[in-house]
Amino acid sequence: MKTIVKSVKGTRDFYPDEMAKRQWIYGHLKTVSESFGYQQYDGPCLETLELYAAKSGEELVKEQSFVFNDRGGDLITLRPELTPSLARMIAEKQNELVFPARWWSYGPFWRYERPQRGRTREFFQWNIDLIGSDSVESDAELAAVACSFMRSVGLSPEQVKLRYNDRQLMDQAFSELGIDSESKSALLRLVDRIDKLPADVWEEKVLGLGLDQRQLTALKSLLADVNLWQRSERLVKFVSLMRSMGQVEYLEYDPRTIRGLDYYTGIVFEAYDVNQEFRAILGGGHYGNLVGDVGGDPLPGVGFAMGDVVVQLVLEHFGLIPDMKTETETIFVTVFDDQTNPESLRIASDLRLAGFKVVTALGTEKLGKQLKFADRIRASKALVIGPDELAKEEVMVKDLQTHSQSSVPRAQLVSFLRNE
Amino acid sequence: MKTIVKSVKGTRDFYPDEMAKRQWIYGHLKTVSESFGYQQYDGPCLETLELYAAKSGEELVKEQSFVFNDRGGDLITLRPELTPSLARMIAEKQNELVFPARWWSYGPFWRYERPQRGRTREFFQWNIDLIGSDSVESDAELAAVACSFMRSVGLSPEQVKLRYNDRQLMDQAFSELGIDSESKSALLRLVDRIDKLPADVWEEKVLGLGLDQRQLTALKSLLADVNLWQRSERLVKFVSLMRSMGQVEYLEYDPRTIRGLDYYTGIVFEAYDVNQEFRAILGGGHYGNLVGDVGGDPLPGVGFAMGDVVVQLVLEHFGLIPDMKTETETIFVTVFDDQTNPESLRIASDLRLAGFKVVTALGTEKLGKQLKFADRIRASKALVIGPDELAKEEVMVKDLQTHSQSSVPRAQLVSFLRNE
Repeated sequence: MKTIVKSVKGTRDFYPDEMAKRQWIYGHLKTVSESFGYQQYDGPCLETLELYAAKSGEELVKEQSFVFNDRGGDLITLRPELTPSLARMIAEKQNELVFPARWWSYGPFWRYERPQRGRTREFFQWNIDLIGSDSVESDAELAAVACSFMRSVGLSPEQVKLRYNDRQLMDQAFSELGIDSESKSALLRLVDRIDKLPADVWEEKVLGLGLDQRQLTALKSLLADVNLWQRSERLVKFVSLMRSMGQVEYLEYDPRTIRGLDYYTGIVFEAYDVNQEFRAILGGGHYGNLVGDVGGDPLPGVGFAMGDVVVQLVLEHFGLIPDMKTETETIFVTVFDDQTNPESLRIASDLRLAGFKVVTALGTEKLGKQLKFADRIRASKALVIGPDELAKEEVMVKDLQTHSQSSVPRAQLVSFLRNE
Repeated sequence: MKTIVKSVKGTRDFYPDEMAKRQWIYGHLKTVSESFGYQQYDGPCLETLELYAAKSGEELVKEQSFVFNDRGGDLITLRPELTPSLARMIAEKQNELVFPARWWSYGPFWRYERPQRGRTREFFQWNIDLIGSDSVESDAELAAVACSFMRSVGLSPEQVKLRYNDRQLMDQAFSELGIDSESKSALLRLVDRIDKLPADVWEEKVLGLGLDQRQLTALKSLLADVNLWQRSERLVKFVSLMRSMGQVEYLEYDPRTIRGLDYYTGIVFEAYDVNQEFRAILGGGHYGNLVGDVGGDPLPGVGFAMGDVVVQLVLEHFGLIPDMKTETETIFVTVFDDQTNPESLRIASDLRLAGFKVVTALGTEKLGKQLKFADRIRASKALVIGPDELAKEEVMVKDLQTHSQSSVPRAQLVSFLRNE
């Protein structure tokens, strides 16, 4: 047996059944994005390394990106995230665009990470941003978009939660603990990693920042205080707006929700399955300055990103992706012989123009074989146009589920099939 | 003024207006693919160099592909075409798949070529293949898919033609001219380039293959014979099938249509604007063996590919892409004050669930300013919910085109907006 050339590690082949799942998820996020009036955009898949150096976290560029010299000698990066491209595009047309701008995108991204459950090197990501507003209304709008998506794919508030926090609230709380400004951002990063480190290691690292035992104890009770959000006027309003938008049941306050990037400056949020068996489904937040570091004028906004891998695992876990195999509504047109073939093809063309999905037999195999193929491709109906049907200007419609059949006048075929 | 980081040469930014065009074209090719019962699939964007070495033309891999070492040291290629991935995927599941398989795909591709009109380094491509049939019916089906697409985007048979030929017919005609087997494939490649070379250079190259002056003269009259197709039983049937499918007006026989790749073994076709002001819009044909050289068992098929760049130029040339700016059906929900804000948000959520695209004001700016923003985003209607409307359970609906307005009971809002 010959060896088949291998695919690249961390990439996926989307056979039709897998592609149907990807497109099912895409369809939902597209509908939700558009229902909030967001416009679709896209950046290039290739950007200069310089762009990410200006904008992305160091780890992402230096360790997790595919970077290469192109034939002209330039350092090119396969996009590991979309925000830098978004920033570049906004900066380039900052004087023409209407703000606040509501933009969304979906496409492939690449990160050179160890492939594991929920993580591939090539993945698809939904990005959605509201740019040019500092209001808490914009934060709530993006959180509502996230919740609307979860609701639309069938993920209930009993299955998934949107955890939220406000970095400014944390900053203020840190101040009250007597933590100096220099240690605050390092401490934020440690809070972000609290679930990833053993408790003793984590405490040691906190003390290593110069906190004393009393501050550590106070910090731990702070991070366990699920009512902390009530001290933030912004979060109180956020929750109230989410209530008005009918999304409050998805909310779960979590003082330990920080998000990794330095980039966020206000409200942040992440969606998780309630048992946290999976990584974050999506995450985002408020940023103070999208375009400043790529050459534009400071512009605040809020946005989130969702990869396709974790959400699909979560949806499969809860059995929420419909069985695409049963969803085909294909009509199979058989070919009786060479004389009737033109009529079969004409009927197929007419049905396509009327909006049906139609597959025709490729030649005059025995009818039984043709019908067997129709079953194998899960067609719902098969049409037979033999010499009798041709003479009477009729079509025999066979229902492949019920195995019933009806003779339908040619002129009524479209309406017959529509009413089935 | 600060400098904005540049994008990579040969890539494109898809701002919403450009993205709408890309998605308009995508929508048409998706609908047409599905109407013929094709299933969507996708391969990875990254493949090993080995895969292309086995399958693609030498020029494409050696000179026109982005190839790089990943961090693990493997030689990775940004896919310059989809067929090798398709072949790999089919070969891997050759024993499970149902044949003939009808598959289509759409996604990004990369070629390191000099950017020029109709050519970018990063582009999108539609691929569609019928795999596992050697029948002329399958060739005609793919040609009909191509013509159905052109018809669906508004390109008429007076504007574009599908030029077709049969390599086996050419092979036979070359034999009759006394051309030996060894020279045939070199001659086919020269015929493919006849429009790209000056006549004298072309003739010199033909003579360089060992043809004599008599053969050259006969070849030239062969390549001018628009009735040559009638000598091919397969092409006669192809044309007759295309007539049955209602696509014959798009056909134009051209004995010089060859397609560059060695890969094609039978009928080939290419779509062009009639004045040939642009490159080929799409091209494809019949192949004898898709998977043999990547490790599968020989399998014939037929397919074509269409890049997004040329077709968009042609569509714009003929003024066929609708003005997307006038197509927005967004409803803008104003916010009167903090008291009425919850009701505004509730109404917005209800309308989204009812299928409308709804943008809300982010806070309580002056109503005049909010309505001005609604105009700038080309919303069709604006809703006002002030204290009076709140008390009467009504909504003021302002038509932003006609500037008329109506008070609509809250309970009838959805049906009112649907009937507008």
